[in-house]
Amino acid sequence: MSKETAEKPSLYTVLTPAVLSLYDLKKSVVVIIDILRATSTIATALHNGAREVIPVDSIAECIRISKQLDAISAGERDGKIAEGLEFGNTPFDYNRDFIEGKTLVLTTTNGTRLLHLALASGADEIITGSFCNFSSVVDYLRKQNKNVILACAAWRDKVNMEDTLYAGAVVQQLMSDFSVNCDSSHMAASLYELAKHDLLGFMKTQNASHYHRLMGFGAEEDLKYCFTLDNAGTLPVYRNGRLVASSPA
Amino acid sequence: MSKETAEKPSLYTVLTPAVLSLYDLKKSVVVIIDILRATSTIATALHNGAREVIPVDSIAECIRISKQLDAISAGERDGKIAEGLEFGNTPFDYNRDFIEGKTLVLTTTNGTRLLHLALASGADEIITGSFCNFSSVVDYLRKQNKNVILACAAWRDKVNMEDTLYAGAVVQQLMSDFSVNCDSSHMAASLYELAKHDLLGFMKTQNASHYHRLMGFGAEEDLKYCFTLDNAGTLPVYRNGRLVASSPA
Repeated sequence: MSKETAEKPSLYTVLTPAVLSLYDLKKSVVVIIDILRATSTIATALHNGAREVIPVDSIAECIRISKQLDAISAGERDGKIAEGLEFGNTPFDYNRDFIEGKTLVLTTTNGTRLLHLALASGADEIITGSFCNFSSVVDYLRKQNKNVILACAAWRDKVNMEDTLYAGAVVQQLMSDFSVNCDSSHMAASLYELAKHDLLGFMKTQNASHYHRLMGFGAEEDLKYCFTLDNAGTLPVYRNGRLVASSPA
Repeated sequence: MSKETAEKPSLYTVLTPAVLSLYDLKKSVVVIIDILRATSTIATALHNGAREVIPVDSIAECIRISKQLDAISAGERDGKIAEGLEFGNTPFDYNRDFIEGKTLVLTTTNGTRLLHLALASGADEIITGSFCNFSSVVDYLRKQNKNVILACAAWRDKVNMEDTLYAGAVVQQLMSDFSVNCDSSHMAASLYELAKHDLLGFMKTQNASHYHRLMGFGAEEDLKYCFTLDNAGTLPVYRNGRLVASSPA
């Protein structure tokens, strides 16, 4: 049953980190969205039993912390494993046989930066979202009865299609439970409605820049995986500098 | 006939002034978009024979310059004519009988700020766009063979639906003549495709914030007018601090 408007928490979509500061993060759950591929990979690693994922800003920090913790270092720059790191940013690197029980130190450009920005802006709570863990995110947000900020990592602050589509998918699910006075949310939901029957096909026909970028790197399987619903149904929550799997409430 | 990709100029859509600095404005025509209602009103005033429109940032400056030039002062704050000014920001204030041959000094929050930001960022050329002068803008951009930045004024840096829809309408028209490697442009064009048969109805059903804001001010006729194509088919170009009507090339 849908709640009365007056009682409903608010939901906002932030299409680029450049406008994150316009929103009140202090009483909100902030969902970090970096579909290609940081938050898809994070969900996958935790789903496959990683003990924790530590997101860090730089390659140097990734090397330093992974050595310190005897952990796995991972991250890419321009579609290749960054020099000095062991693994990349593809979810296929993190199957259960490999990652179970281990700590992953991950550096990505857009997603990590946004997460730290949200933290610095006083976000009450931070989780990460992707199509891979779609239902876990939606179920969690519905149960919290708190304001929600869907924060798209975008691409160097430029709005991108994949993060917007994901935000739209979440908005569609939560529309009746939240007060949504936010054009970005309604726009994202409309786009998702257009795209939902074939997300990857939509990305292709709409000439989405990241689609072509990853296809150029030969990452077609990554793309398919990252647009598949609920193939890694774990909820990553950020606590004390680490993303860990939350068991469903 | 569509040009070869290599020869085509680029087209970008900037959904909020907060990311304008990420784009190279120096070799571009920048289209300032503030559909509700600054750029619709500017097109209307010039179409009805205003000599020029001088966009200014503040009410104080609006008063000062209009006195100095013996011009009309206009601008609103929170949907009412701002204190000390003579007229508002509705296109219906500027019919030919009233505005012909006169200078209008106009202060608006989002559109004027964006125009000055574009100017400070070294925009090669600035024009203003609205549904009211849609074809003039599209025809002009098609003929220039220069890069184009569709710059949405948004609402206090938050992405809004009406400016995005207009950008999408322009993108649709220019897609084959420009190189469009820009997710925001494709997203805007998809949204416009959804909305184009009933723009105002789309704004209403999508719960667009500005639709409700203006309806709350009793500005339903303004809304209808601002979503009508080519009812004020003049091209405003910015020269030496003033917007003037350019005769079609």
